[in-house]
This record gives sequence, structure tokens and C-alpha cells, in this order.
Amino acid sequence: MRLLTFQQNEQTKVGIQEKESVYDLKELIEIFNQHNGENVSIKGDLDFIIVHNEEVMETIEKVWNWAQANKEDVSQVAHKLENIKVLPPVSRPGKLVCVGNNYMDHCIEQNVEPPKKPMIFSKWPSCIVGPNDVIKLPEDSAQVDYEAELAVVIGEKGKNISEEEALNYVFGYTILNDVSARDIQFEDGQWVRGKSYDTFAPIGPVIVTKDEIEDPHNLEITLELNGEILQDSNTKNLIFNIPYLISYLSKGFTFEPGDIIATGTPHGVGVFRDPQVFLESGDTCKIQIENIGVLENPVR
Amino acid sequence: MRLLTFQQNEQTKVGIQEKESVYDLKELIEIFNQHNGENVSIKGDLDFIIVHNEEVMETIEKVWNWAQANKEDVSQVAHKLENIKVLPPVSRPGKLVCVGNNYMDHCIEQNVEPPKKPMIFSKWPSCIVGPNDVIKLPEDSAQVDYEAELAVVIGEKGKNISEEEALNYVFGYTILNDVSARDIQFEDGQWVRGKSYDTFAPIGPVIVTKDEIEDPHNLEITLELNGEILQDSNTKNLIFNIPYLISYLSKGFTFEPGDIIATGTPHGVGVFRDPQVFLESGDTCKIQIENIGVLENPVR
Repeated sequence: MRLLTFQQNEQTKVGIQEKESVYDLKELIEIFNQHNGENVSIKGDLDFIIVHNEEVMETIEKVWNWAQANKEDVSQVAHKLENIKVLPPVSRPGKLVCVGNNYMDHCIEQNVEPPKKPMIFSKWPSCIVGPNDVIKLPEDSAQVDYEAELAVVIGEKGKNISEEEALNYVFGYTILNDVSARDIQFEDGQWVRGKSYDTFAPIGPVIVTKDEIEDPHNLEITLELNGEILQDSNTKNLIFNIPYLISYLSKGFTFEPGDIIATGTPHGVGVFRDPQVFLESGDTCKIQIENIGVLENPVR
Repeated sequence: MRLLTFQQNEQTKVGIQEKESVYDLKELIEIFNQHNGENVSIKGDLDFIIVHNEEVMETIEKVWNWAQANKEDVSQVAHKLENIKVLPPVSRPGKLVCVGNNYMDHCIEQNVEPPKKPMIFSKWPSCIVGPNDVIKLPEDSAQVDYEAELAVVIGEKGKNISEEEALNYVFGYTILNDVSARDIQFEDGQWVRGKSYDTFAPIGPVIVTKDEIEDPHNLEITLELNGEILQDSNTKNLIFNIPYLISYLSKGFTFEPGDIIATGTPHGVGVFRDPQVFLESGDTCKIQIENIGVLENPVR
């Protein structure tokens, strides 16, 4: 299932995407109840659904399966994707865990040895924005860079998770642009401030539940800046794969539903290009990950 | 006002501390309503009260002022502090922002130059625990250290805050033990993982609202390990004071109510002692900050 959050008439709603259509979950449920004499309900936003997915996803799947078999009855609550304002699918994760230097090609471009263990850093969740939201260039940085990343959304609380069990703790996958003020990041030494300026974590548009991603380690990932492809790789090039990351991290801390792991970026970031490329007002960043979607953001 | 969260009969409650007594806010309000023919109510926990403090604190102050003038009527809802289970006063801040090397005495003990700008890092909120909760020694670290810190609780959303206005954005103050796995912290380079093991952020016991702290930059701060004083300083030794930190940080990101700033630790941490001191099972850490209280945690 492809879940998203959208805004309509100043209300925040949960939607299910199918190709160019987005179905309003609440309205789907009303029609489902009318046609089937049932009385199911889902309260809360997508953050709530992720946190409580073990209780609510079964109901959502039941409604969605019925809707797909009864397209004529539900077409009235379908919106065109292009006509709605899509918000970030998660707004306030407990942890936004990031992995550095996690693509072999990205290590080669920096001329650094691949790390022997995952390199972990953090972004503060207050920098999350949605698709088409503006990436705002801060006044005190002249080196704002893009980073296309596959993001894992955790669906279950867990600690000391084994690699074998790790994917059971995943709710789904989305796209994250790990926008980075390179001058601040490197001057500070500790990366979190330069990585957490407001608007520095565009995320979305959808969370694709894990059942729809056959192999998260075989997805094309690209970033276009103003139409020119500057990052072009595949998640098969991840040095530490997703089960390894979940297992490694969960030795120290407890994962909670809604936590995000940004799995790292492939080669082609601006700071290591020759000549260097940094974001400028008027630019457009467009990240595409196979089977997930397109995350596009203007820069101002 | 001295606000805390406590647990009783498996319910989580908000309390107001006065010396050795803790008044159950919900019950105070009921008595207040009965005696005054009013119908005020406060829903939600202390996290909620902080986030919505502009709407709810006036009511809480009204009730508390009445209670203090009518002690006989409210004595029935007072609990002895020693008899209740105090929980962390905040459980899920959006940001846990930490400042490194922010006491002159701590720079001298490390033989490092005082920083020219604040050194900022992060802890993940999932490591928050309350007073008397166990600090759990992880298996993969042999160098777990303590750090006594004054923590600022933000009460208002803001960006680009001036130093002059900064204290208006503060809700109150509490104590935080910035527990740190030194081996992991320094090996990783990025500090967040070694600073965010489960239980590595004991916090509390109370949040003292800012009106009760005449000068946050003149508070004695000590840490005792098993009764021996190992840190002993005063917040007047902060290199970057609280208004400066709030102003500096808010240039990059938006502060939100409930965010925490841990303002740094004074000299005397274990890793820079000769011989070094690290936490061992059976130890007790006790941090005391003048006018705020005592935060004590066993180590296992």
C-alpha cells in the first residue's frame, strides 16, 4: 500500500495512492461501512497509523482490498495526485537516524576508505518538510548540498534485533533528501546543526509498505538538479544493508514505531564534484527511487 | 512553580511540588472547582502542558495560588515526595539539543581552547529516563561517564530569536545527566550514538518555571558519585549563556515548545580525571542544582 498525508480544505487527511489517484481513507471507510453494514473507523493521522499499525493496518487493508474490487463505488473519493497538496508522510518521528558514507561509490568519490562500521549521525525532526515544499537557503551558509536517500520507516518497537528478524520491524520505505550545509557541517565537526536547518529534510511523497517492495536492496535511485542527473545509483551499492543497520543500531537504543533511518547517499553530491555544485535559489531538486516515487522540491 | 510527572495506581499524573509534598494537579482542580463553583479543567500530561502552556498555565496558576491560600482544603491531595514514583517531566521532546565544552573549567581540564562558537550535538529522546531509574551499562562500552547539566525547557515556538528576547521563550529549567559512552563517542566521531544508549538521559525530577529562578546563570551545580563530589561548579561559569545559545541555535532551526537544551557540563567528568573514573554497576549518580533539586540514579 502507498500511504500519504494530504491537505484539503485546511484538513489534514490520510490518502492511499494508486497511480495518479489518491483515495481519501476516511471517505473510503465511510463508503465501505455503508456498503457492507460495518462500523469500522480509523482515527488519527499517518503518524498515528504508523505508531499503531499493528492494531489498525488490518482494517485499512480490508477496506482497501474491498475498494480495489469495487472501483465504481469509490471513484467519487479519488483525487488526482496533481491536484492535492501532499504533506510529509511523517511529521514528528522520535528519531531521525542518518547513516554516512554508506555507498561504496560515495566513498570512492571522497577518496575515503569504506567505513568498517556504520557512521551514524542525526537530524532534528523539526527540519522535515513535504514534497514541493521549498528548501530554504540559510543566510549563514554558502554551501547547501543535496543527498538522495532511501529512508526506512520503523513499524515496531524493538531492541537487540537480529539481522534475520530486522525486516519484521520495518513499516515501509520512503524518500528523504538529506540537505546539508557543508560549511556549517564541517566547521562544527558534529554534523547535526548543519544537517538540521529548517526545511533540510524533505521527505515523501508516500510511504510504501514493505510488502510492496520486493527487495529494498535493488532500487534505482537518482537525483536531478534542474533536470540534470547528478546522482545515479542503486541501493544494491549500500555498504551496510538495512537488516545490518537495524540490528547494529538496536544494540544501543530501542527503536520505536515512526523512527526513520536515512540509509545514506550515493556518489554525485555537490561538495565532492569538480567543480563543486551547491544549491541556488531557483533550483529544483528531484529525487526518484524505483517503486517509491518522486520527491521534488524547489530551492529559494 | 515546580512541576513534575508521577505515577500512581498505574496512572500518569501531573504534580506540583512544594518542599516534601506533591499535589496532584487533577485533584487540586476538582477541589478548586467544588469550592469556587468553577468548572476549569486541564487535560493532558506535562508534555501537553508545556506545549500548550500559553493556554493552560494561567489556569494552573490560578488553581495553585488558591491552593496555597487554602492549604487545609487541599492537604488531602498532597503526597509525600518520597512515596511516589516520579517519572521524567518530559518524555518525548522534539529536539534534545546538547552543548559541548561550555564550561571554562571543563575546557581547562581537557587542555582545549574554549570554543569560539557553541559546540552542538544531539541525543535521541528515546534515551530519556526519570529520577531513580537505572542507568543501564551497555555491553559494548567499558567507559560510561556522567555529566551534570542544567537543562532549559523551551516554552514557545520561535526562530531568529534575539538574545534580548531569548528568555521569553523559556518555560523552565530542570536537571539532565548527559550519560556518555566515551569509547563509542570518540570511536564514532559523531557523538550521537554513544550519547543515546537507552537510559543515557536521566532528567528531572521537576521543571521549575522560569519565574522561580532569579538568575539561571548563578546556580551551584554538583555531581556526587557514591557520595563523593566529583563535579562542583556554578552555572556562572557557562561560556555561552542561555540567551546566547537560544539566539545562536534559532538562526538555523525553529525551536518548538518542549524542546530541551542541555547546556553543557562543568569540570570533573570521569574520562578526564586522573585516574579515570567510569560508572560501574552498583554506583549511584546524584546531581544537585541549586533551586531545582536532586536527580539521583542507580547504575546497573
